Amino acid sequence: MTDSPVSRFPVPELHDLPDDIRTRILEVQEKSGFVPNVFLALAHRPAEFRAFFAYHDAIMDKSGNLTKAEREMIVVATSAPNQCQYCVVAHGAILRIRAKDPLIADQIATNYRKADITDRQKAMLDFALKVSREAYAVNDDDFAALERHGFDEEDVWDIAAISAFFGLSNRMANVTSMRPNPEFYGMGR
Amino acid sequence: MTDSPVSRFPVPELHDLPDDIRTRILEVQEKSGFVPNVFLALAHRPAEFRAFFAYHDAIMDKSGNLTKAEREMIVVATSAPNQCQYCVVAHGAILRIRAKDPLIADQIATNYRKADITDRQKAMLDFALKVSREAYAVNDDDFAALERHGFDEEDVWDIAAISAFFGLSNRMANVTSMRPNPEFYGMGR
Amino acid sequence: MTDSPVSRFPVPELHDLPDDIRTRILEVQEKSGFVPNVFLALAHRPAEFRAFFAYHDAIMDKSGNLTKAEREMIVVATSAPNQCQYCVVAHGAILRIRAKDPLIADQIATNYRKADITDRQKAMLDFALKVSREAYAVNDDDFAALERHGFDEEDVWDIAAISAFFGLSNRMANVTSMRPNPEFYGMGR
Amino acid sequence: MTDSPVSRFPVPELHDLPDDIRTRILEVQEKSGFVPNVFLALAHRPAEFRAFFAYHDAIMDKSGNLTKAEREMIVVATSAPNQCQYCVVAHGAILRIRAKDPLIADQIATNYRKADITDRQKAMLDFALKVSREAYAVNDDDFAALERHGFDEEDVWDIAAISAFFGLSNRMANVTSMRPNPEFYGMGR
Amino acid sequence: MTDSPVSRFPVPELHDLPDDIRTRILEVQEKSGFVPNVFLALAHRPAEFRAFFAYHDAIMDKSGNLTKAEREMIVVATSAPNQCQYCVVAHGAILRIRAKDPLIADQIATNYRKADITDRQKAMLDFALKVSREAYAVNDDDFAALERHGFDEEDVWDIAAISAFFGLSNRMANVTSMRPNPEFYGMGR
Amino acid sequence: MTDSPVSRFPVPELHDLPDDIRTRILEVQEKSGFVPNVFLALAHRPAEFRAFFAYHDAIMDKSGNLTKAEREMIVVATSAPNQCQYCVVAHGAILRIRAKDPLIADQIATNYRKADITDRQKAMLDFALKVSREAYAVNDDDFAALERHGFDEEDVWDIAAISAFFGLSNRMANVTSMRPNPEFYGMGR
Repeated sequence: MTDSPVSRFPVPELHDLPDDIRTRILEVQEKSGFVPNVFLALAHRPAEFRAFFAYHDAIMDKSGNLTKAEREMIVVATSAPNQCQYCVVAHGAILRIRAKDPLIADQIATNYRKADITDRQKAMLDFALKVSREAYAVNDDDFAALERHGFDEEDVWDIAAISAFFGLSNRMANVTSMRPNPEFYGMGR
Repeated sequence: MTDSPVSRFPVPELHDLPDDIRTRILEVQEKSGFVPNVFLALAHRPAEFRAFFAYHDAIMDKSGNLTKAEREMIVVATSAPNQCQYCVVAHGAILRIRAKDPLIADQIATNYRKADITDRQKAMLDFALKVSREAYAVNDDDFAALERHGFDEEDVWDIAAISAFFGLSNRMANVTSMRPNPEFYGMGR
Repeated sequence: MTDSPVSRFPVPELHDLPDDIRTRILEVQEKSGFVPNVFLALAHRPAEFRAFFAYHDAIMDKSGNLTKAEREMIVVATSAPNQCQYCVVAHGAILRIRAKDPLIADQIATNYRKADITDRQKAMLDFALKVSREAYAVNDDDFAALERHGFDEEDVWDIAAISAFFGLSNRMANVTSMRPNPEFYGMGR
Repeated sequence: MTDSPVSRFPVPELHDLPDDIRTRILEVQEKSGFVPNVFLALAHRPAEFRAFFAYHDAIMDKSGNLTKAEREMIVVATSAPNQCQYCVVAHGAILRIRAKDPLIADQIATNYRKADITDRQKAMLDFALKVSREAYAVNDDDFAALERHGFDEEDVWDIAAISAFFGLSNRMANVTSMRPNPEFYGMGR
Repeated sequence: MTDSPVSRFPVPELHDLPDDIRTRILEVQEKSGFVPNVFLALAHRPAEFRAFFAYHDAIMDKSGNLTKAEREMIVVATSAPNQCQYCVVAHGAILRIRAKDPLIADQIATNYRKADITDRQKAMLDFALKVSREAYAVNDDDFAALERHGFDEEDVWDIAAISAFFGLSNRMANVTSMRPNPEFYGMGR
Repeated sequence: MTDSPVSRFPVPELHDLPDDIRTRILEVQEKSGFVPNVFLALAHRPAEFRAFFAYHDAIMDKSGNLTKAEREMIVVATSAPNQCQYCVVAHGAILRIRAKDPLIADQIATNYRKADITDRQKAMLDFALKVSREAYAVNDDDFAALERHGFDEEDVWDIAAISAFFGLSNRMANVTSMRPNPEFYGMGR
């Protein structure tokens, strides 16, 4: 499908894929103008592909108090210390677009404490990082701190789920050496 | 559904659940004699429930060179440093049963390097822990070390996926304060 | 004395041991029905054996505000992150018996913050872990926090001494590859 | 000099600065089209400004086996884990320009092990990171490893000095909340 | 016994102490010219005092391949990262005297890798630090590395026991705020 | 210039040095009675030598609320965890002299929290260590905490700059294996 390396594992040809996966890939290609490599890399394992994107859609496309840009902030802020090139670059692009802010992704990836975001968003990212680094220590105080910023219990689940899910994604991307498409680097700047 | 606490989030009644989720829960209840709390706790979010168990089944029930007991070893060895009570206790029970060994789960949870397992299994767990702790540093040497123990590239993906998926599970269990059912503690001893 | 491995160091025969050490071992055997391996492993060094058990008895059998079960909680909670198989398994058994609770040892070994224990006991374990991990930072605030839970200064010494002594024990058990007796795994469940 | 925040410390007006500092600032403005904020933020302390840029020039503009792009790689790779927004963004821009590669800075900032650079450059960055994180453990083996990639002893000093100097810079930028100029984010893309 | 603070816990008067403890203290006073504070601080708990010094003597005064100076090197090298003021200062003094070297204690306390000691001694300290920091990972390779430097299995036990015992001592000294006597600072310089 | 090792890099002869550097070295020799090795080791790179000492003088010899002894406390407290033998030994000597206290340097190098210094000085060192270890997390709360102890904003810059500059110095000293002169060990005791 492409000459450039996408993953250290085999990448299937589109015509060899199950219909539902091929359809999803063609849809994202039509919408984005290219196929993000995560779709190709994970298509090597169709059952995992389906579960992965079902999980992704369940937490990233759902309604709730978190905006779409805020969900992407969580992805970028937690993926950076996990040193996941794919997620930082690809979701950094999506964050710039969702937030309509060309600077925000690099700020959050480097040090979200110094980013041009609200105190509420910093509290959200503090918690997302705690889930990523030491979820075993999450306690009532964390829920109370988020509540003071207007996050209800369902929002807390959302933040935790996004942090936890992209922790999985970061690990698979690093093990498979999944490469971000060159298109992502400049999007939204 | 139960008086004892299962999760700090609301736990739905069985009759309020979508059919597919209720069916899955009733099946596991019939097979195990009780409903493991992870099914109840995650049923609070049906879309995430479906994706979670689809992912679980894709990596835990698939064929390959890893035995079912070895897959559970990975769960227990990575969940212990993440301090996930639910996964260590519940999957410790499953590991004892799969391995037909009453001592193995406590050994692996405490220090897999001293457990009564093979060198090949220790190499598998070394890698699973590396994925869990510092996936960003995984490189060709790790693949080569596993190959020397007879693991092929697909096995490496399996080990990584189990480590990464239960990293997600560990984080959600800790944030929701998911409790292991009392039945698990003594199973297989 | 036994065919199964007890330690990577030589283990003396009972009849070769000094009288006082043989007597202590026979007493514990009579009481427990078996000889816990720590007695055999440390008997390789009689002078250290005597000092070790004198220290153990001085802090574990003394009177004070800490119950015997609470003393064992400290052992289990601090030995788990030190990954000491012998202490987690053997003292986990003793904890189950002392607390008359079949679940408590696995809960505390995995994540004491989520265990079915009192807030006072969690504060006790917070401090025990701080002594184990960063005793250099212990200060007046720690004493005050424990006092608010009813611990006096002598109790603080007890908690610290148990944490510190089993830190020694954890290290010797790991270096000698001391194995827990199979009997411990199922006791008190 | 500007309405947007540059630093949490006072930023002097150009006309209040000593001649040599004003001259340097005007020169860089003429060359770059804007004044990088580091010049303004550090001008608050003229003696430190002079020493800082003298050090900078001594290690970044000197001749040697390291190319100018490679020197910037060291800055970006070490500044990212130090979470220094100014250095990652500003020197990321310079790296893109020096290397004539629009993707390289984001790759190195996120995970240099996965960047499109040579093995020699990865060895250089391994060492730069070791100097940044645990210089106390640098030993003969590190010198030998670099020599195998063609680095001589003077190159080792250069790598170490750049890593150490930007460690200073990272700390001052974080304490002063030094902000990267918006111009840097898109340069060289 | 003294007006200056020795410990944050009560320090008994000599005449109130059990005979054996008073005798030991008077002996050390006669030999040293002063009473090292560790004797006074631990005398608050006679049973622990006896066990502590019995352990100390068993590992520090025994015969074997480790010289007395080397035993003190282990104490200083492991107590420094544990930030134990009493042990670094008091055993630093003893090390200077035992090694007849006024510089060695400060070198080892700061960075033993750069100290004027033999490669064999550096290997000994590498292992002592591993026991102190991550005893759970000690394995056959560590024994083999020490054997290459001429250490037999009993020496390995000695190194481990000294590291483990002073880990206990470091923790108790920090919790009790045990102060080194002023006499120690200048001894042997 | 000397037979004893000063650095693993070449050390120039005094007569080969540029005039300004030779003059500075002769001045310090006249004042101290010997040439501290840092002057010789860094003279290998004249441009870096000049920048290094200009920076040093700018932050160590300037006026302000920090006393000269307090500036040296920062050097010793931050250099100890960086395991920099040169800085701990040489600046420990200067600290003893500046503070007219023979015990203070060893106390601060080992555990400044237990040193005989004021609460204000402990707050100063808490911040200096935070800059050294996690400057990315410095925030308004740190400035407020220092203000409560009477430090103004310029003092905060001073503390940060000293911590950051000696972080550079620690790294270069460790990479070059810079040795402290024997004279320093006993000075001021």
